[in-house]
Amino acid sequence: MTIPSANSQDPLKDLYTDWSEILAATPNLTTRLFRSIFDEWHQPTKEPEDVTYAEGTVGGVLGIWCHPAGAEAAKVLLYTHGGGFAVGSAQSHRKLAAHVAKAVGATAFVLDYRRAPEHPHPAGLEDTVSAFLALVEQGIRPGDITTIGDSAGGNLAVAAALALKERNHPLPGSVVAFSPWLDMENAGETLASNDATDALISVPLLEGMIAGVLGDQTSPTAPLANPLYGDFSGFPRLYINAGGDEALLDNATRLARIADEAGVDVTLSVVAGQQHVFPFNAGRTAAADDEIARLAKWYRA
Amino acid sequence: MTIPSANSQDPLKDLYTDWSEILAATPNLTTRLFRSIFDEWHQPTKEPEDVTYAEGTVGGVLGIWCHPAGAEAAKVLLYTHGGGFAVGSAQSHRKLAAHVAKAVGATAFVLDYRRAPEHPHPAGLEDTVSAFLALVEQGIRPGDITTIGDSAGGNLAVAAALALKERNHPLPGSVVAFSPWLDMENAGETLASNDATDALISVPLLEGMIAGVLGDQTSPTAPLANPLYGDFSGFPRLYINAGGDEALLDNATRLARIADEAGVDVTLSVVAGQQHVFPFNAGRTAAADDEIARLAKWYRA
Repeated sequence: MTIPSANSQDPLKDLYTDWSEILAATPNLTTRLFRSIFDEWHQPTKEPEDVTYAEGTVGGVLGIWCHPAGAEAAKVLLYTHGGGFAVGSAQSHRKLAAHVAKAVGATAFVLDYRRAPEHPHPAGLEDTVSAFLALVEQGIRPGDITTIGDSAGGNLAVAAALALKERNHPLPGSVVAFSPWLDMENAGETLASNDATDALISVPLLEGMIAGVLGDQTSPTAPLANPLYGDFSGFPRLYINAGGDEALLDNATRLARIADEAGVDVTLSVVAGQQHVFPFNAGRTAAADDEIARLAKWYRA
Repeated sequence: MTIPSANSQDPLKDLYTDWSEILAATPNLTTRLFRSIFDEWHQPTKEPEDVTYAEGTVGGVLGIWCHPAGAEAAKVLLYTHGGGFAVGSAQSHRKLAAHVAKAVGATAFVLDYRRAPEHPHPAGLEDTVSAFLALVEQGIRPGDITTIGDSAGGNLAVAAALALKERNHPLPGSVVAFSPWLDMENAGETLASNDATDALISVPLLEGMIAGVLGDQTSPTAPLANPLYGDFSGFPRLYINAGGDEALLDNATRLARIADEAGVDVTLSVVAGQQHVFPFNAGRTAAADDEIARLAKWYRA
């Protein structure tokens, strides 16, 4: 699949099904080939129109700027891509980040943070924090920065705000987590209850990713690796979504509950019948486009 | 490698070396995984700035429009990507096509033509011809269209003009072939003489690609599959390049000689020390940028 069939009901699910067949047929797939495959993550996403791109370095971290025509340059989405901390890239998420940036009227910078297993926790987190602080040094108001990411990148978006708070730095104005993957204990109940409907995520797949990112040094309950153990008092307003069919659904619902109990202004959007990081279907499905429109309305409020 | 190291001398060669290691370590790699790997072809290329993109369909063929700011919409590069007719995509060549479009001041449409082995010759060629004729029907002057491609896509760019000529259709104003792969008899002398310096191409790799594209129906000397057997009388002005280190070098030199003997206005640019389709290093190396600047000067002449 290069550009999804125009009549697919769910191009993202088609891609996940295809990937799952490859993973099943290719035991012991190397990290290198995992990265090749997961760099196809952009395929379900339609090319967003009226967006230009530029490579850049922010806080020493490489990435891609997405500049939607007419967007405010002084409002920045600091986007951390998903992929189990190990795979995915600024390129695999370029189109998704650009769709979101366009909808909210901001610029996005998609980080190529250091990936596991070569760079276990906290490398990716520290890259995200560095980029945030560099944007502030460059004159962007902290409140005009949103840390945002999907899956493992949703973890980084949340953990970066927790780290900034812990270190008494200024905080982003808002945090967005698409289908965040937070639970490094790998114990959520939807892992089993949604196992049949999730086209990609499985417990063994997550086990491998957890081993890579935690390495030998980090506990699965360390709050900056597993934000379900974080202190959310004083945390920025938070938007979380998840697909109703995904095995990681209760990462999103648990995060929403914990944040709500800490007094955070939190919005949770769970869309029935959708897969992990369903906004990847931007430009292809109403479910994805409606979700991004909902986020944009929340962002502008 | 996600974004090449800023201090690499030749990011494309680095990628080819990496791919060759994967191919050596993974015998019987499926076409599906070949496609994953070769979709990384964009990685050496820097994101071109001030270019927007849009998906489209031209003559029934999906693809990606590249719109450089200020480029003439009525001048179109019809870009056919390389990848042995089997791999590569509009996405793998988006950045390269956009760099070239920007340099020449035209719009590019990068075709997702049907690929082998599912769709052997002449599927990709017919898609290219269909797209060309559809552009003409839409009001683009034939002389303002350039068929352009790299490697197997360079074959398609040349063969499409031969097919249009044979069928008495209007011809493109010019044809561009980056490191064209033409010789379906797999017999060029640089296959051996440049074997040690080419970081990617090998005789067995080409054998597999030839079997896929020719299938059971097409002769390796059919002129529209192997333009080295084509009739170049009345052919449009032609720009050909190749890297001095590549195993397919003499595909370029033979094409230049045959076209010149037929009276074609032909320009051949061979750059010493360069790999197959070295313009993929656009934005990274002087060799690639100089070559694209040379092409732009030729295009505007």
